[in-house]
Amino acid sequence: MSRNFKSDNVTPVCDAIMKAIHAANAGTADSYGADEFTEALTSVAGEIFGTEVAIFPVATGTAANSLALSHCVPPYGAVYCHDAAHIATDECGAPEFFTGGAKMIGLPASDGKIAPQQVADAAALALDLGVHHVKPSAVSLTQATEWGTVYSVAEVSALAAVARRYGLRVHMDGARFANALVHLGCSPAAATWQCGVDVLSLGATKNGALCAEAVVFFDPAQAEDFERRRKRAGHLWSKLRFVSAQWLAYFKDGLWLDNARHANAMAAVLARGLQSLRGAQLLQSVDANEVFVALPESTVIALEASGFGFYRWPGCAAPQAVAIRLVTSYATTLASVQDLVAAAERCA
Amino acid sequence: MSRNFKSDNVTPVCDAIMKAIHAANAGTADSYGADEFTEALTSVAGEIFGTEVAIFPVATGTAANSLALSHCVPPYGAVYCHDAAHIATDECGAPEFFTGGAKMIGLPASDGKIAPQQVADAAALALDLGVHHVKPSAVSLTQATEWGTVYSVAEVSALAAVARRYGLRVHMDGARFANALVHLGCSPAAATWQCGVDVLSLGATKNGALCAEAVVFFDPAQAEDFERRRKRAGHLWSKLRFVSAQWLAYFKDGLWLDNARHANAMAAVLARGLQSLRGAQLLQSVDANEVFVALPESTVIALEASGFGFYRWPGCAAPQAVAIRLVTSYATTLASVQDLVAAAERCA
Amino acid sequence: MSRNFKSDNVTPVCDAIMKAIHAANAGTADSYGADEFTEALTSVAGEIFGTEVAIFPVATGTAANSLALSHCVPPYGAVYCHDAAHIATDECGAPEFFTGGAKMIGLPASDGKIAPQQVADAAALALDLGVHHVKPSAVSLTQATEWGTVYSVAEVSALAAVARRYGLRVHMDGARFANALVHLGCSPAAATWQCGVDVLSLGATKNGALCAEAVVFFDPAQAEDFERRRKRAGHLWSKLRFVSAQWLAYFKDGLWLDNARHANAMAAVLARGLQSLRGAQLLQSVDANEVFVALPESTVIALEASGFGFYRWPGCAAPQAVAIRLVTSYATTLASVQDLVAAAERCA
Amino acid sequence: MSRNFKSDNVTPVCDAIMKAIHAANAGTADSYGADEFTEALTSVAGEIFGTEVAIFPVATGTAANSLALSHCVPPYGAVYCHDAAHIATDECGAPEFFTGGAKMIGLPASDGKIAPQQVADAAALALDLGVHHVKPSAVSLTQATEWGTVYSVAEVSALAAVARRYGLRVHMDGARFANALVHLGCSPAAATWQCGVDVLSLGATKNGALCAEAVVFFDPAQAEDFERRRKRAGHLWSKLRFVSAQWLAYFKDGLWLDNARHANAMAAVLARGLQSLRGAQLLQSVDANEVFVALPESTVIALEASGFGFYRWPGCAAPQAVAIRLVTSYATTLASVQDLVAAAERCA
Repeated sequence: MSRNFKSDNVTPVCDAIMKAIHAANAGTADSYGADEFTEALTSVAGEIFGTEVAIFPVATGTAANSLALSHCVPPYGAVYCHDAAHIATDECGAPEFFTGGAKMIGLPASDGKIAPQQVADAAALALDLGVHHVKPSAVSLTQATEWGTVYSVAEVSALAAVARRYGLRVHMDGARFANALVHLGCSPAAATWQCGVDVLSLGATKNGALCAEAVVFFDPAQAEDFERRRKRAGHLWSKLRFVSAQWLAYFKDGLWLDNARHANAMAAVLARGLQSLRGAQLLQSVDANEVFVALPESTVIALEASGFGFYRWPGCAAPQAVAIRLVTSYATTLASVQDLVAAAERCA
Repeated sequence: MSRNFKSDNVTPVCDAIMKAIHAANAGTADSYGADEFTEALTSVAGEIFGTEVAIFPVATGTAANSLALSHCVPPYGAVYCHDAAHIATDECGAPEFFTGGAKMIGLPASDGKIAPQQVADAAALALDLGVHHVKPSAVSLTQATEWGTVYSVAEVSALAAVARRYGLRVHMDGARFANALVHLGCSPAAATWQCGVDVLSLGATKNGALCAEAVVFFDPAQAEDFERRRKRAGHLWSKLRFVSAQWLAYFKDGLWLDNARHANAMAAVLARGLQSLRGAQLLQSVDANEVFVALPESTVIALEASGFGFYRWPGCAAPQAVAIRLVTSYATTLASVQDLVAAAERCA
Repeated sequence: MSRNFKSDNVTPVCDAIMKAIHAANAGTADSYGADEFTEALTSVAGEIFGTEVAIFPVATGTAANSLALSHCVPPYGAVYCHDAAHIATDECGAPEFFTGGAKMIGLPASDGKIAPQQVADAAALALDLGVHHVKPSAVSLTQATEWGTVYSVAEVSALAAVARRYGLRVHMDGARFANALVHLGCSPAAATWQCGVDVLSLGATKNGALCAEAVVFFDPAQAEDFERRRKRAGHLWSKLRFVSAQWLAYFKDGLWLDNARHANAMAAVLARGLQSLRGAQLLQSVDANEVFVALPESTVIALEASGFGFYRWPGCAAPQAVAIRLVTSYATTLASVQDLVAAAERCA
Repeated sequence: MSRNFKSDNVTPVCDAIMKAIHAANAGTADSYGADEFTEALTSVAGEIFGTEVAIFPVATGTAANSLALSHCVPPYGAVYCHDAAHIATDECGAPEFFTGGAKMIGLPASDGKIAPQQVADAAALALDLGVHHVKPSAVSLTQATEWGTVYSVAEVSALAAVARRYGLRVHMDGARFANALVHLGCSPAAATWQCGVDVLSLGATKNGALCAEAVVFFDPAQAEDFERRRKRAGHLWSKLRFVSAQWLAYFKDGLWLDNARHANAMAAVLARGLQSLRGAQLLQSVDANEVFVALPESTVIALEASGFGFYRWPGCAAPQAVAIRLVTSYATTLASVQDLVAAAERCA
């Protein structure tokens, strides 16, 4: 029973996806995407999103985000995002590298969700500064957010409306898109292009895949030459069938939604369990599969000593308390959640 | 029985490596390389190469080459290579992207092997032009070459000597390094750092892996900060254990050498078979697993019509003849080679 | 009598420098810096700074800053600076372009001067995040600051001490270095390398030149290959004698200090005059040649209507008041300052 | 009397342009191009070229070429040019830097003029290689060429026709455009946009200016955001009036054509004089202001010893002969040409 709640990327590959990798390993197949799996993926993704899409599998979320932005933003562009967004702080400057030097401009928001007015103000200021400042070019939303919250469809729509007003493209970092989607309870279409998203970085790795991320353009015409960007970044696999096969399995029979629903449910159980402890305080709404909670420092130390894996998180104001992040996944069992809660209760 | 001789990257994953991927899929493991497989890889690779190394797994050869060069060459640098080298023509400008604009300067050589004097002349000319020209910074050798030939150890040593004279780093593009190595019959050490190679792009994908390439520094001190380069290029996998596990299996019990030896042997059989045809002409020495042969155009057309897969290749001067490239692999069977030769005989 | 207080870059060229340009225009001279003026500049600058330097003339401050940083900072690096620093907000992403995507990390400070602890905290956080975050690489100080204040020598020393502790290079943006220097009243050496500055962007354009900025390395060994960076950025003039001649005139007989002293004196007069108005409030200490002052909105409007040129500035909290910036220069006359103050008095 | 024939960039500034710089030095003027000179330039240039243009003054030819290309070519693009073009060999990788890594693909041509079929073949090959190769994006012509020859209007038209067929933008490197123009004897319009040129790097520095180069777009709509590219490359001067004023003087009363006509005439006299020497051989047609001539080595040595300045040039096949390049300019006097010819005659 795993005590590792550090991230959803510590998980193994789920059975259905591992089987799909095996099934794809039969005989020769033309390389660089000229295989039956990759060819099937476009239409399958189109059905999932209810519209024609261009989808490009890659192996990491950093690649998906950075390639997507590089295609939407000029080197002299500005991308507005949350100040804790992965693209701003956790990718070692990858978006700057891929875009040729565009600026990721972080906006503060205590619940992880940037507001339309923040984007409007930042873009208006930039336009005032004219040629001396980078050009407002895109807004990037993380869905689910870095704080485990989820933008409502209305919130995304409102941000997209501001984006249109200022000529910004709308990018969604969907490393945990499935977790957000099952929380929203709407269709993939309603959560993306129907509320104004132009391009989605879609992740499967954290939700059961071995390595499967993708860039999805909801207007295939906007994807022209994107293949060259992927190639020159070293992200066009020769044996691409093995990524595409993961995607096909992920989308099949609702696997992605089932996995995400389980992860979210485990987070909810975990949150309820911890919340009831003396001195505990949930720091964010648990909309997806991440729990941010402040616990007495003694409890945190005891949990660490018991071999539970999680990260201490900055930003906890309460005295003698420590904020931590716990992440659940498709593979988290109810028993392991109960194990952690029980251990916390013992410490408290 | 496969008739696909287009490339060694059309092959499936060999059994031992697929089993290793499975075995790695047990329970949680810390991400981004903090797993037992990745941790073991450094010492295993060190044993293989007979010296302490720094090894960084990535998923594509484009990434391995471009990352390696970006770490050796300033943005205002020149890299000398064969004019048909992958880094010069087949990576959509990836080396330019990763290095921030360094120049790949292609040198012609009919057998795919650049000569020390060519490098010396090019570097001397560049130094004459001074600040107006890019700075001589590295030489990149493809081993085995794009023409299926293999540099001898003495040839590599001679190139490395010129490189040292002009302050150039020595990079080896070893997408088919195993095929070259079994041809040379020497140790991995003798084929690399002992003859002056500083950094190796080592490929396993073409030789039986699912996706396993790596950058190997023979002086770990030269690898400082390389991890950041890999991260910001989107090539640090969260579930890195699945690439590292492939490498461990690849090196285990000589699998890599066995696979390569088989591929080379099949190429030799193929070459002998085709060579005996009327009007056929081998265009290059078959040192590794690629056969470049000129055949009567009617034979080529007939083979294509029979469903054999291969590429027509530019550069055949003979009238009514067409040059083609045929690639064998660990998975090529003797029967499939005989099948092709027999079909060619029927056409001739 | 000019009413243009928008910036010190609206000024004409001062006589001594225009004469020097003329004097340089005699006969042929070898290009790209192989002329007598450029050759003399290195030793002249060495005398000025009291140590051997490497100095590279360029035409703009954006170029000087960006080239300097690109030589000190890797593409995966972080540069710590004030959040209103030119490199962060006013150069349309030039530092990101030249460095290949390094991050300018802006730190807030109400008087324009960042504090050692801010730099230490930011660097420590970055190191905690490891490979996922950009690498702490440089600190950049603007001297005089964007708010017209001047770091004391002790303040610079304290920042440089933190920089050394974290392995950061120290860059000084000295677009208005002369104005800072006459305020400090110390030697150029004491204001730069003796308190830990590694590389200085030195400006003359705002202080009387036609176009003369420069990058000064206080350790010439650190300037290796810098010439190539300048060339490939298009900043190596063919007729470089005409920039170098400006520098020689600028440094001759203390012209640069005289010009700056006059500009600062005019700012002091202006500040005193405005400060005495009802409802006026100086927003920053007037250490150099910029005055940030809050005035009643009606006064500001009246001044604008009278043809005075200046910028409204964000950040004024007082009701019915507007912050403005007024800049003086070597060419500002006492009469024009009195003219502005008198006009403001009439409005008040 | 100057004996410096190294280049036309060793010349001083011509009187009319120096006077214009003086005249521009009156009082304050708004910075960054918001001055009357820069504002006048667009319409003046429009009259010169007989069509509405967008013109952007910069200080160097390297900047003009690299900025122009960066605006026409994606980072994954290919630019076809002569293999001795400045953009390929003499700008230390500036075009690669500005474009974010595009490839300059040099095509050989003994007279400096690339042929339509060469461009067509290169583009067709690139398209065959697909995503693995850079995308054909632009053709760049040097006019006058690096070998002192001039493309006829028909030759430019034929190249532009191929460019249109393959979707390439047409760039002209016109560092010596005036010299080409007076040779052609046609209008500026006929030599540029009317025969298919999209964007021109126009030089004045070699033809009498202090520092005045420019990028000219013949379709102003294609120049959108170009200002930001110039700014972030550090090529937007604060006191831009001093470059714009040079341009106004350059175009006034045909100064540019007079200067170029004189330079070309001096080259013709020089060529005739040297051609008549025993053992001399003109290596290229002297269409503009450059003379490439092979002379007996003893003559070359004697000229060097007499203090004449010129460059030895590679590529002379004749035994005991040395190729040299001699460049004339607006400032070259007939006496100095006769001086050189006489000296050569004495040696012969």
